[in-house]
Amino acid sequence: MKYLEKFRVKPGSKVDLSKVDAGFKDKYHHGGDKKVQKELETHINKMREQQYLMYAEGGRSLLICLQGRDAAGKDGTINHVLSAMNPQGCTVTGFKVPSAEEAAHDFLWRYHQAMPPKGHVAIFNRSHYEDVLVVRVHNLVPKKIWSQRYQQINDFEKMLSDNGIHILKFYLHIDPDEQLERFKKRIDDPARHWKISTGDYAERPFWDAYSKAYEAALSRCSTAHAPWFIIPSNHKWFRNLAVSRIISEYMESLRMKFPEPTVDIAEIRQKYHDIVSNEKKRADA
Amino acid sequence: MKYLEKFRVKPGSKVDLSKVDAGFKDKYHHGGDKKVQKELETHINKMREQQYLMYAEGGRSLLICLQGRDAAGKDGTINHVLSAMNPQGCTVTGFKVPSAEEAAHDFLWRYHQAMPPKGHVAIFNRSHYEDVLVVRVHNLVPKKIWSQRYQQINDFEKMLSDNGIHILKFYLHIDPDEQLERFKKRIDDPARHWKISTGDYAERPFWDAYSKAYEAALSRCSTAHAPWFIIPSNHKWFRNLAVSRIISEYMESLRMKFPEPTVDIAEIRQKYHDIVSNEKKRADA
Repeated sequence: MKYLEKFRVKPGSKVDLSKVDAGFKDKYHHGGDKKVQKELETHINKMREQQYLMYAEGGRSLLICLQGRDAAGKDGTINHVLSAMNPQGCTVTGFKVPSAEEAAHDFLWRYHQAMPPKGHVAIFNRSHYEDVLVVRVHNLVPKKIWSQRYQQINDFEKMLSDNGIHILKFYLHIDPDEQLERFKKRIDDPARHWKISTGDYAERPFWDAYSKAYEAALSRCSTAHAPWFIIPSNHKWFRNLAVSRIISEYMESLRMKFPEPTVDIAEIRQKYHDIVSNEKKRADA
Repeated sequence: MKYLEKFRVKPGSKVDLSKVDAGFKDKYHHGGDKKVQKELETHINKMREQQYLMYAEGGRSLLICLQGRDAAGKDGTINHVLSAMNPQGCTVTGFKVPSAEEAAHDFLWRYHQAMPPKGHVAIFNRSHYEDVLVVRVHNLVPKKIWSQRYQQINDFEKMLSDNGIHILKFYLHIDPDEQLERFKKRIDDPARHWKISTGDYAERPFWDAYSKAYEAALSRCSTAHAPWFIIPSNHKWFRNLAVSRIISEYMESLRMKFPEPTVDIAEIRQKYHDIVSNEKKRADA
């Protein structure tokens, strides 16, 4: 079964995260396996080839949204998988607390600005879903406001999709024990101390509230044109394998092709020969 | 001798491109040599490590400008060298004919917008130098206007440098025969026909005018704070080696370090233990 199907949230289905095994490894044993390494490499190479085709076609684009709790592996997925994209044609945008200018606009404004132009890939490290996640959990706006956003997001994504932006959304699913384990590793590794902020762990007591908020977003906003994927992410290597495989399967399903030449190649060949003979004449004179 | 010195245009010196060997290979023989491959890999890995340090420091940034004639290898340098940068923290901006909005502003406006934020790297595929290259060669603005731009560019780059943006500018130097050779390869390779446009070869008759324009830019705008490098680029592998080596040498010379933690790690450790014991208590209750 294609991972594109296996991990996709079926439109209209109701997600219960407590029933999704964050430690799932499929048929694989561990990340050191040569088989895993080789498959990852294959998916990544395909992804890069497909990116080049998308760039060549120049007609449509791809948006990849990464969501997940603290330490779920958003940065790691970018570093180990999406880094393989050619940066000419790929941008990564991280969304943090909105700036004063961003906050002065409607909530979708800043995401709209970061959308990929034709032929390009955009990666969102956190996305417009924050506005129904952290915002909902901490009541940053009234329920009346955030509850309208699911439909607003679906409409927005539909418009983007109708205009040639393909959208893949990944929820990196870890369980509470794995998060604690990762927090501990950060504390125990002096080389990573610079990254620790007082804000870390602040969301931990809200684990269940976030689960509810994620379940709502995953259930209500996984559509045919902008699917959500729940990626078992306790094992970083499996997460990388799954994300790279889904992206390459998806891009291959688009059956992109190099466009026909826009010029008459015979004419260009003639132009080339004219240059060569003119320059020769001048040199001989 | 460091490549950082070897290929740098000394401030105040007068460049004569006809005296620079575009086919220079230093002590190396050809690109297939294991030695070349290994050194390239070393430079690229260092570059990526240094990028991470710059991101961690979060105080300064790096601007890399790529200039060169058609087929000089700007895209290839991005694909084979600069692609190694983590896209989270690196953007590539290509500058083509200005849009109506861009043309309605001063010539530096669009370049200013694409400058790297603190901790980031920005790569310019073509740059503000186009405004003293193509613009000068084709008289797109009067001489009175473009001739002021050298000083305006120097002042602009000085301001950027004073504000923490490190600037490295690469001129990819090929000779006329190599350009013809590359044009021919494109025509003979059906997989690359989609890339050919009627504009190709349009600049070929202006080879000498471009040489003069490049010489002026290289001579007048290589400063201590924003040096130009002339990279012999007839051999793609040597170009890749030189560019990656100069960038890694330069970044290492900055002696960047991971910043000190911004928080009291003992306090964070306590926070962590509080979470664990609180959650345990709740689970036991």
